[in-house]
Amino acid sequence: MALTGLVLSLLIPVLAAAAAATQAPIVSPEVHADRTVTFRYRDATAKKVELSLEGSDPVPMAKGANGIWTLTTAPLAPDIYGYSFTADGETRMDIHNSAFKPNLIWCGNMVTVPGNPPLPWEVQNVPHGQLHRHFYRSGVIGDERDFFVYTPPGYQASGRTKYPVLYLLHGFSDMTNGWTAIGMAHTILDNLIAQGKTKPMIVVMTLGYGVPDFASPTRGGYAGSNIRSKNFELYRQALFSEVIPVVEKEYRASSSKSQRAIAGLSMGGAQTLFVGLNNLDKFSYVGAFSSGNLPSTFDKDLPGFDGAKANKALKSLWISCGVDDGLIGFNRELYKWLQNQNVKVQYHETPGRHAWMVWRRNLIDFSQLLFKN
Amino acid sequence: MALTGLVLSLLIPVLAAAAAATQAPIVSPEVHADRTVTFRYRDATAKKVELSLEGSDPVPMAKGANGIWTLTTAPLAPDIYGYSFTADGETRMDIHNSAFKPNLIWCGNMVTVPGNPPLPWEVQNVPHGQLHRHFYRSGVIGDERDFFVYTPPGYQASGRTKYPVLYLLHGFSDMTNGWTAIGMAHTILDNLIAQGKTKPMIVVMTLGYGVPDFASPTRGGYAGSNIRSKNFELYRQALFSEVIPVVEKEYRASSSKSQRAIAGLSMGGAQTLFVGLNNLDKFSYVGAFSSGNLPSTFDKDLPGFDGAKANKALKSLWISCGVDDGLIGFNRELYKWLQNQNVKVQYHETPGRHAWMVWRRNLIDFSQLLFKN
Repeated sequence: MALTGLVLSLLIPVLAAAAAATQAPIVSPEVHADRTVTFRYRDATAKKVELSLEGSDPVPMAKGANGIWTLTTAPLAPDIYGYSFTADGETRMDIHNSAFKPNLIWCGNMVTVPGNPPLPWEVQNVPHGQLHRHFYRSGVIGDERDFFVYTPPGYQASGRTKYPVLYLLHGFSDMTNGWTAIGMAHTILDNLIAQGKTKPMIVVMTLGYGVPDFASPTRGGYAGSNIRSKNFELYRQALFSEVIPVVEKEYRASSSKSQRAIAGLSMGGAQTLFVGLNNLDKFSYVGAFSSGNLPSTFDKDLPGFDGAKANKALKSLWISCGVDDGLIGFNRELYKWLQNQNVKVQYHETPGRHAWMVWRRNLIDFSQLLFKN
Repeated sequence: MALTGLVLSLLIPVLAAAAAATQAPIVSPEVHADRTVTFRYRDATAKKVELSLEGSDPVPMAKGANGIWTLTTAPLAPDIYGYSFTADGETRMDIHNSAFKPNLIWCGNMVTVPGNPPLPWEVQNVPHGQLHRHFYRSGVIGDERDFFVYTPPGYQASGRTKYPVLYLLHGFSDMTNGWTAIGMAHTILDNLIAQGKTKPMIVVMTLGYGVPDFASPTRGGYAGSNIRSKNFELYRQALFSEVIPVVEKEYRASSSKSQRAIAGLSMGGAQTLFVGLNNLDKFSYVGAFSSGNLPSTFDKDLPGFDGAKANKALKSLWISCGVDDGLIGFNRELYKWLQNQNVKVQYHETPGRHAWMVWRRNLIDFSQLLFKN
């Protein structure tokens, strides 16, 4: 085969892409050494383009030559930032950044501003665990679904000792991979285990919808939905009858209450309280991050809840929320309700909004409490 | 806590989303019962919006009320279709469809037009295998990377019998999860194994770049790159020294040549030929789908290739390409070159372009040939 013919044939995909773009390539986002970040979005006809960066209000971008809208931030604290563009009121992805946030409703990208030394959510040269994705038909819920199991570095299928298990729940509109693809739970655990700060443990990450289309984009949110209770109750049933038995059969996963923790964020925080506090015989650690969507009264949805029994059953009940989160009032009420019953609570108000940068830090802090006594 | 306060606090994320959208929700894509599909994209200021649907040329969409551009297709053959919008020459994602195609350079969404009965890439109520994601530092390549291992339904960590292994390679610009997230390899295998058409096997899916930033969005394509050979050679070294030993140690994976296959698409097809035909002692089945990016002459890059030895060593050498693929000429030349050396080839020209709908079918056909004699 002639060189010329081959080179031409190999160029075809490249030329096709160039023809589709018809313009010079754009780099976005561009993370600079001083931790400023430049975002670029090309739209020649839009009248107004804004950047929505996680943790901040939307900021207008400036239109430059060739219809490229640009914004360079001030130096940013090292973190993983979700973001999207808004062009004339329409949310747009950054197509030049392949780091997409998986979500059933709200789309966006991610950009990492690295720390020096690296932060726990940054992939580092330490021993790594593995992620195992299980697929199954849920008889309880009536759909095909999946869950993830993190096994820590050095885990082997055979062996006598059992590992403690953290059941880790995502929020409303997240997909099953929320805690890994956005939350970087596996990376956080790898790094904290390498530093000796967190005990090696198995982490199980489920799909949190007890009703299959609970987070359908066209449902318009969960507030006021009459299927809220069903969503919680069927999630609990599936967890207990379909997920935990498989985990404890197929992994060296402890079934001891003292070696089981449950935690979650937002809707998953409320589910954590619902499952954990209604089943004090099952978990010793309960962590609710930025919880929302707990049913309408605590009395009603935690029937027979007894503060003295909870204190005896739990090694840790953790409640946290960012002070700039719209759900901070709810969490303060919850804390007050628990205090009124003399329940021991590790209560944390942290900086931040309703955002993954808060929940990664929650996992970092909460995981270090687990299974140490 | 008062009901009103709680409902208000729960509504906050919903209200925030509504404020951001400021308009009625859009449903896109909408798959109708007659297998037509309606795509919708809102952009009040764009002058021209097109739909690029996999397998077809771009088609203009019609602007309707409220700036919503709409297109309803003719009835489509059941398949998974990649697509994107182009607004005034700029590629745009469909933000109303959470099914994103992971890719380092070319972004897009996916929509499934279901078949009746379901096609092999559709999730069905059959026994499912699992996906295991490994993370490691590659000493050969010098980065942190991952690979996936599919274990078939019923696979257990302990047991005497070994499973045959298919090493399955993605194309240029794909991520490690290309064959699962887009190719649905695990679903295809589940369904074909359930039907008794494909033998239970382990499938290993690696990251195909022997040079860490080989598919960087700013590199501008691989053609003519002087690191092409390095990309192939270091990929081979990492596969042999870092991936295969781990797979054969941690899984019940056969190390017998008769129980090893390698296949790939596009760049991965060329890597399959490079690795497979240069290492006739390692694999018995070699499948190259829509190959591109084989180095400049076959003679140079398959030094000492001997057709008689290949015929003796291989149970199957499969070469395929879609007739509307820009790489069809290259694959015809390759077939001619092999024929000239009297090599037995299973050569298939199929309908289709350079697209995943072709490669899913290639996997369906190729996997049924494997490990049966």
